[in-house]
Amino acid sequence: MAKDDGNRRAKMLTKKSTPIFITMTTDFGEKDRYVFEMKSRFYRELAERGGDLDRFVLLDVTHYIPRQNVRAAWPVVRNLPSSCPGASFHLVVVDPGVGTDRRGLVVDTGRDLFVAPDNGVLTEVLSRFPQRRAFVIDSFWRKAPAGAGIVFDGRDLFVPALAALATGTPPEKIGPPASDPVLLEVPRAAREGERVFGEVTSVDSFGNLQTNIPAEWISAGAVVELEAGGKSVPYGRAYAEDRNGTGIALPSSEGFLEIAVRGGSAAEKFGIAPGHRVTVKNVR
Amino acid sequence: MAKDDGNRRAKMLTKKSTPIFITMTTDFGEKDRYVFEMKSRFYRELAERGGDLDRFVLLDVTHYIPRQNVRAAWPVVRNLPSSCPGASFHLVVVDPGVGTDRRGLVVDTGRDLFVAPDNGVLTEVLSRFPQRRAFVIDSFWRKAPAGAGIVFDGRDLFVPALAALATGTPPEKIGPPASDPVLLEVPRAAREGERVFGEVTSVDSFGNLQTNIPAEWISAGAVVELEAGGKSVPYGRAYAEDRNGTGIALPSSEGFLEIAVRGGSAAEKFGIAPGHRVTVKNVR
Amino acid sequence: MAKDDGNRRAKMLTKKSTPIFITMTTDFGEKDRYVFEMKSRFYRELAERGGDLDRFVLLDVTHYIPRQNVRAAWPVVRNLPSSCPGASFHLVVVDPGVGTDRRGLVVDTGRDLFVAPDNGVLTEVLSRFPQRRAFVIDSFWRKAPAGAGIVFDGRDLFVPALAALATGTPPEKIGPPASDPVLLEVPRAAREGERVFGEVTSVDSFGNLQTNIPAEWISAGAVVELEAGGKSVPYGRAYAEDRNGTGIALPSSEGFLEIAVRGGSAAEKFGIAPGHRVTVKNVR
Repeated sequence: MAKDDGNRRAKMLTKKSTPIFITMTTDFGEKDRYVFEMKSRFYRELAERGGDLDRFVLLDVTHYIPRQNVRAAWPVVRNLPSSCPGASFHLVVVDPGVGTDRRGLVVDTGRDLFVAPDNGVLTEVLSRFPQRRAFVIDSFWRKAPAGAGIVFDGRDLFVPALAALATGTPPEKIGPPASDPVLLEVPRAAREGERVFGEVTSVDSFGNLQTNIPAEWISAGAVVELEAGGKSVPYGRAYAEDRNGTGIALPSSEGFLEIAVRGGSAAEKFGIAPGHRVTVKNVR
Repeated sequence: MAKDDGNRRAKMLTKKSTPIFITMTTDFGEKDRYVFEMKSRFYRELAERGGDLDRFVLLDVTHYIPRQNVRAAWPVVRNLPSSCPGASFHLVVVDPGVGTDRRGLVVDTGRDLFVAPDNGVLTEVLSRFPQRRAFVIDSFWRKAPAGAGIVFDGRDLFVPALAALATGTPPEKIGPPASDPVLLEVPRAAREGERVFGEVTSVDSFGNLQTNIPAEWISAGAVVELEAGGKSVPYGRAYAEDRNGTGIALPSSEGFLEIAVRGGSAAEKFGIAPGHRVTVKNVR
Repeated sequence: MAKDDGNRRAKMLTKKSTPIFITMTTDFGEKDRYVFEMKSRFYRELAERGGDLDRFVLLDVTHYIPRQNVRAAWPVVRNLPSSCPGASFHLVVVDPGVGTDRRGLVVDTGRDLFVAPDNGVLTEVLSRFPQRRAFVIDSFWRKAPAGAGIVFDGRDLFVPALAALATGTPPEKIGPPASDPVLLEVPRAAREGERVFGEVTSVDSFGNLQTNIPAEWISAGAVVELEAGGKSVPYGRAYAEDRNGTGIALPSSEGFLEIAVRGGSAAEKFGIAPGHRVTVKNVR
């Protein structure tokens, strides 16, 4: 399958009129010029490779992954496959190990291509696509300004590899197969009889808590217990059902259990952060 | 008029070489991936509809409308009509009522098309373009991932409607006419003899205060009194005239009365927020 | 040289298939709609001039230059020349003097064109490209909404000039030569025997301190002394060498001396800000 998809992608890349999507996910923030440096380097690499610069659509996913927190990128990375139409290339840079011997990684799911440090940030892609192929980015691709330290692999290693891939270099030409890419343990929700055990995976900037509990496991009448403070909230369908602002659990926009407070912040109200446990009772 | 403009737009949409502008205004912030999810969904919808993805220019207006504050979006929305050349489509998502029975709205001014929740956020468009046509977005357009709650209509309802409009579906095919779209009361400035009464409508991140008082009503020599603390500032033409940093009123970049402190924040200095009253004396 | 490059640029601008890069660097932040107003005005100006809107790639460098701090823009501006492939136009707006008689400036390095207020913000470009030509932006290009004050030259003066340049108007048609553009003194690092004296020029949002000391002046074994608190850190190659989080100096991504704390903020740990002195001992 991966091979056929690879051929399909190769065809797409040679078909002039189809746009190619490049997404960027980092912990750089937007105050510094680092995101611009990656984008402008990307275009320079494309130009040097004779790429058709007009074809590329660059989309920022977020540059606010919590700093150097590889696991915090998972809920974002998990949603990248198939997020864009056609051939998509995803650059993910959360890289506390830059300058060490941690490797650079290309992961090919057949449809999407990921470029990232090999530090577990792609765990959700590596584990969900068993037929994916992974390659180590050869140091051949490194290209830094004169005198620069090894402090910005996003620009100096990953973007050159990305530009090569996006102009048709097959992933196996980027470097040798990575037989053992770093996989970190992802906490999964579990069912035991009428109970479901999970945890908070992220907090969005509305203060809504996202969990790893599939909403399809839960039905009306369930009660959701929060670890901290022993609070519980009912399970509903929409924020508006939380008429008094006491909190509600509901299916998130991705189909997981979300905990929210209407017109307020659930994270603040309940004093809850990623990693805190959530238990659902009276399931089904 | 609206009909002719609609025909003009239809022609523009079929003319391959003209870019089509899509603007996005939300209260989502940029820390989460929500803006990306709307953009990538937009491109997926375009691709499924056979749209020419290259033609679209997506512009972020701001994603920092104060959270769930429909009125706070007005000064931004008011400036969207005719902001971009040619056919423009404006997505505005400040949506505290998501998941309730509040409707989705398409408003066609003839030249610009708006897609937004029907909660008053488009008041400034609805009231300024009396010949505008408004339509309810039919639930036919809703398209959410499996298991998702009704928590993200920006992505699941408004973007599919937007993509249909942007690929040539006429607004009247999006749903039935909305004869009574929500209109909230917009505070207007008033003149009484040599006085003008208005209020602060927004504060920008420089701390400059924007008001609803047309600058053309005011002339040199006027004195601008601020509600809180009973302070007053002179009326001038440029920030630099405020040599001592004691505050100045002047015409804003949109032609309204603005209150500023040179090299500082007027909001902080005067302790003033949106809704506070402003009185101008000795007008003309 | 500048003339030949100008001809090369003119040819590039008439060659339909080459994208043209526009970069934007401001202190506006992204909460307000000001960046959007510049972009939408740019496209409107292009459309009015019959420009091929599809050809332009707009890239945000940063909109978080510290407010009204002209010198703080230097480390960013210094890296703009040749950052993008082909013909590039750079808009830089940090403009505390808007509304005074400070002039608008176009600087042509031959390859890149800069548009900015004449307040020293382009010092690093003016001084590094001795053959550059500089022109004053004629007030002919000013175009503001009815009743607007002179408060937003980014949109009302610089963008119209930028759009003219980007559609082929030669810089000398934008206004008269600026024989004496504002040049501020840039603090340069100095060598004295085995010592190097420099200073901190900026702090990034990781808390890493950038200095004006070329990394090529320093070699292994050097000791870097920080002004505040009398602390010193060793000189290495990668963040990871700072195993205990006590601080390290290393070559930055641009080839200057950078001071960092692994997994932390050097700015906070050492209480250091731009302007603080840095001394390197035992050089070479």
